[in-house]
Amino acid sequence: MQATMLYGPRDIRFEERPDPQILKPTDAVVRIAATCVCGSDLWPYRGIQPMSDPVPMGHEYCGVVEEVGSAVRNLKPGQFVIGSFFASDNTCPVCHHGYQSSCQQAEFVGGAQAPLLRVPLADGTLVATPVMPTREMLPDLLALSDVMGTGWFGAAAAKVRPGATVAVIGDGAVGLLGVLSAKQMGAERIIAMSRHPSRQQLARTFGATDIVEQRGDEGVARIQDMTNGLGVDCAIECVGTQESMWQAIHATRVGGHVGYVGVPHGVALKGEELFFEHVHLHGGPAPVRQYLPHLIGLTLDGKIQPGKVFDLTLPLAQVAEGYKAMDERRAIKTLLMP
Amino acid sequence: MQATMLYGPRDIRFEERPDPQILKPTDAVVRIAATCVCGSDLWPYRGIQPMSDPVPMGHEYCGVVEEVGSAVRNLKPGQFVIGSFFASDNTCPVCHHGYQSSCQQAEFVGGAQAPLLRVPLADGTLVATPVMPTREMLPDLLALSDVMGTGWFGAAAAKVRPGATVAVIGDGAVGLLGVLSAKQMGAERIIAMSRHPSRQQLARTFGATDIVEQRGDEGVARIQDMTNGLGVDCAIECVGTQESMWQAIHATRVGGHVGYVGVPHGVALKGEELFFEHVHLHGGPAPVRQYLPHLIGLTLDGKIQPGKVFDLTLPLAQVAEGYKAMDERRAIKTLLMP
Repeated sequence: MQATMLYGPRDIRFEERPDPQILKPTDAVVRIAATCVCGSDLWPYRGIQPMSDPVPMGHEYCGVVEEVGSAVRNLKPGQFVIGSFFASDNTCPVCHHGYQSSCQQAEFVGGAQAPLLRVPLADGTLVATPVMPTREMLPDLLALSDVMGTGWFGAAAAKVRPGATVAVIGDGAVGLLGVLSAKQMGAERIIAMSRHPSRQQLARTFGATDIVEQRGDEGVARIQDMTNGLGVDCAIECVGTQESMWQAIHATRVGGHVGYVGVPHGVALKGEELFFEHVHLHGGPAPVRQYLPHLIGLTLDGKIQPGKVFDLTLPLAQVAEGYKAMDERRAIKTLLMP
Repeated sequence: MQATMLYGPRDIRFEERPDPQILKPTDAVVRIAATCVCGSDLWPYRGIQPMSDPVPMGHEYCGVVEEVGSAVRNLKPGQFVIGSFFASDNTCPVCHHGYQSSCQQAEFVGGAQAPLLRVPLADGTLVATPVMPTREMLPDLLALSDVMGTGWFGAAAAKVRPGATVAVIGDGAVGLLGVLSAKQMGAERIIAMSRHPSRQQLARTFGATDIVEQRGDEGVARIQDMTNGLGVDCAIECVGTQESMWQAIHATRVGGHVGYVGVPHGVALKGEELFFEHVHLHGGPAPVRQYLPHLIGLTLDGKIQPGKVFDLTLPLAQVAEGYKAMDERRAIKTLLMP
């Protein structure tokens, strides 16, 4: 098959690779119906996250089961499934606590920007949809594989409740879907921090009531102004830099909650400063698997349309251009069709 | 009056100072019945927390109202009261959220190691006991002024629930009362980390079911062993060093809660490492004021005896020896009687 590899900074190649095979009896092979480029793919793409060997890229996927291993019980070829970036058994104590992305058997799923993908722990990882989706439904369902579940976890970790005032830091796909999640959870006021008109527009479509264009201390001051000097009840951090983490913490009121889902790069939180902020912190790699059944339901019922974050669709063979468009911020998120 | 001043590292002096006066109409002056030395007093005492001028010491106190300012409504001279280290109005939005130690008017109360103390925002800060306590009741009531409320906040921030497994990092007075708090909140298993026989004994008296003597990575490995490799549901961090913070985080299971009340010194939490731990973090200066009515009730009903942490009682004039005994870890906590 032809699949996507990253060779080094900004060096994406679509090249011949061996077809994936069932390696363990718990594996499945999925024929990809749609895949995409993740904001977190840009860290290694930009050379910020060092790598030695060429890496198969992509970890967001949905498609049709092609083949299952001998121990797979719940799935069969022909079913349409959605999975997420960490394979999980969904049975260990960690999964029972709702943290499938830290499953005791967790395994990163890589190489989804391809026509075929091997998924480990298929019974625990893949969730079948009750219907075979049409082509029009693919963007919404694909979004559930990572960004929608990650935005949802950010809002859940920030303890968004009906009536809450929420700030969302980051206007990438995850941040925008953090806005959508906060809206679904009943937030009354949702402040999106963004300086890009098209992203502001989508944030409003998803439920943002206010836009703050300032960043850093200025952005925090603006939010304090808007909340009688108290700060927001909940902040959803979707970037992962030192500045954005502190922006989230300082924008949050005493006793409020910060949910952080941006993969941290170069972040160090000074204990002394954190201590006097009196906020709650929770976050990490989103346990997307936990949310898949609920989010599939919301999507099929037409209650959410997370696929709106895809503003560029390309044939998979043009994956390099898909990365480039996101890197240059010409696209929020690129959908790739094999 | 004769009162306690810190002039520099290990230089405590008990010397003539002006009697405190009512400076604002919301002030009260309290005649101290009992005061004590706090673990946090040892940071400046040891020179770890820099200071320029001599500082009046002490922030834990109970006693009898001597005089009130013209705006004080809820208190009158002759009442026995307990206050805490941050004066708070108890009416602002931050206090309403339960974080009186971050009150919008918060003011640090210093100089309690003295016969008389000025307390700002007296109506919000001081809580009167329903009875005039006997001398025997003073240690338990004094403990509520800081260490008991701080241990309680640590356990509350760590979301201790009935049936929980809890680790307590730090065997100072706060850690020991963190054990007592966890027990009161219904924890089933309480692991105290301590290598001092007398503190281990007191931890067991307060409800510890297990003792771990190892520290750092070894201590974490021991706790993982005791919890089927998962870690505890809740960790209460009562030290404030880089090692103890990570000990608490690494000892906690995925999705568990770390409550941190040790004042951080030189702590920096690496975002990348924190991200994959998947724990909840909450802490800061304890809102002792919130808990005072409840804790006074538990104490007067004989349900808790937090005063057991005082294992040395001295006349106030011997305050320097009180610091020395704690610094050398000969005493857990020194009670001082004016």
